[in-house]
Amino acid sequence: MAGDGEFDFIRQRLQPLTEGDPAALDLADDAALLTPGAGEDLVLACDTLVAGVHFLETDTPQVVASRALRTNLSDLAAMGAVPRAYLSAIAWPRDLDADWRAAFTAALHREQAGFGLTLIGGDTTSTPGPLTISLTLVGTVPAGTALRRNGARIGDDVWISGVVGDAGLGLKAAGGAGGDLAACRAAYEAPEPRLALGEALRGFASAAIDVSDGLLADAGHVATASRCAIRIDVDAVPHSPTAHAWLRDGGQVETLLTSGDDYELLFTASSDDSAALTALGGRLGLSLTRIGAVRDGAGVVAETADGRRLEPQTAGFTHF
Amino acid sequence: MAGDGEFDFIRQRLQPLTEGDPAALDLADDAALLTPGAGEDLVLACDTLVAGVHFLETDTPQVVASRALRTNLSDLAAMGAVPRAYLSAIAWPRDLDADWRAAFTAALHREQAGFGLTLIGGDTTSTPGPLTISLTLVGTVPAGTALRRNGARIGDDVWISGVVGDAGLGLKAAGGAGGDLAACRAAYEAPEPRLALGEALRGFASAAIDVSDGLLADAGHVATASRCAIRIDVDAVPHSPTAHAWLRDGGQVETLLTSGDDYELLFTASSDDSAALTALGGRLGLSLTRIGAVRDGAGVVAETADGRRLEPQTAGFTHF
Repeated sequence: MAGDGEFDFIRQRLQPLTEGDPAALDLADDAALLTPGAGEDLVLACDTLVAGVHFLETDTPQVVASRALRTNLSDLAAMGAVPRAYLSAIAWPRDLDADWRAAFTAALHREQAGFGLTLIGGDTTSTPGPLTISLTLVGTVPAGTALRRNGARIGDDVWISGVVGDAGLGLKAAGGAGGDLAACRAAYEAPEPRLALGEALRGFASAAIDVSDGLLADAGHVATASRCAIRIDVDAVPHSPTAHAWLRDGGQVETLLTSGDDYELLFTASSDDSAALTALGGRLGLSLTRIGAVRDGAGVVAETADGRRLEPQTAGFTHF
Repeated sequence: MAGDGEFDFIRQRLQPLTEGDPAALDLADDAALLTPGAGEDLVLACDTLVAGVHFLETDTPQVVASRALRTNLSDLAAMGAVPRAYLSAIAWPRDLDADWRAAFTAALHREQAGFGLTLIGGDTTSTPGPLTISLTLVGTVPAGTALRRNGARIGDDVWISGVVGDAGLGLKAAGGAGGDLAACRAAYEAPEPRLALGEALRGFASAAIDVSDGLLADAGHVATASRCAIRIDVDAVPHSPTAHAWLRDGGQVETLLTSGDDYELLFTASSDDSAALTALGGRLGLSLTRIGAVRDGAGVVAETADGRRLEPQTAGFTHF
């Protein structure tokens, strides 16, 4: 944006999102100023969402704000971090009307409040292209306790939180697919970053990642980083009732395991911790399911109980 | 990008930019992990550059990389911060060829080395729109010493580093304007973030800002934040020989004072510090020029010695 519009927008629409956080310096300076706590490491995650690529052009301001903040928060959850604040760099299409922008910032305000977050800085500009939202999230962990992808040990169990595949079905629903999948729309539109779980897994999980690229692809990232193989027991992977019904109607389990956007946490842990993890899930009100094991070797093997091996290259996931 | 290309690009082109910085976690995790030093505040600046808006579609990869990093570094300079690391969120147009991308990351690598910076994280994605580069710079200052815009006091002098207006003339040259302005191209293509000056001004300057929107507009930002008026002595503002020649050929001084992108530091300081500041400029090999004063009131008044008052609204700057 050029001219007064930009500064009016910052003052009227963005300043309220700082909630007076001193780190924001009222968005009146060149940068944010953060005083770290003693004994804390900072976790910095930065994700970009582009209209038509990472969300639908038809998505509402609420859905776009929700996905922008929550997918970034999921990266903090995967590291076991507690969110502290964020910066937003938004390139607005020139023809986007002021009402849409105002609805977006109002939605961002509601969303951040649910996670105890404040806006502390960023940039506001215009683009001849699609709406492009780049958020930088700042979280903290006690020094040395961040979860990583590279700690999986041979013999560890592989766990997943929640259910797998609903976000992919929800995206089909948001794109106009049939009525039965409507129950999955929330999984796409407002994914739940597993922050409490990530925090609780510190010092527990040997490796963790959030499922953004798809369960098998993200298991592959852990296998690569940890220099091991991961075996997934396809029949053990938990799905929602809607997804089970979709499978009975001829849907492919490969789709559920490769369709990304679930933002559940996949993690590895010693089998000695099984009972403790099940109890943790109970305390959090979140199902935690053992879906495989870490083995010697490389890559991911996903097999059903009757011995059928999923062939990732035919299942649409090309990330490794 | 989708598929293997994205991960190959990260491994081959971006990982070398980490220079093994442990905070980057080899770009193999969900986020960067930074251990702040004791007694340090973190300064976080985030700027977005869009092709066709913030740089020319015809600019080389070197110019785009240079401007992306240097304009962000200038925000750290304005706060008196020492750069520590950065995250890059880049949305690549789908039709941009791999050679351009490789030349860009190679240029970014050269640029960051000149400032002792390492890449510690970010995001790589694709866009149907123009190349969009969002960098988040992390710098540090001793706790409580960051320069701000809001500290100018009535009676302070107003100073500027270097010369004003060359970047605007350089942009005309980069866009194809006549030969005499070619000497100014470097001011547009590789602006010099005044990091050493910013650091030296800590505890010295009462307020500081980098000139990105134009001298008068940025003086206005300081006036607003500091709740005072700023008087600029137009004849005292330093220009390069090329700019002086351009003025003699009929160029308007308003253009030089409103054409942004100079990335010099405008700052205010007690008149007791004049001699010390002149000496500081000598030590840094950088001219520091007194160009005005802080007064009671509001806004910016820019006047020539013969009493002509520049009228900002006719001079193309609409930011306040």
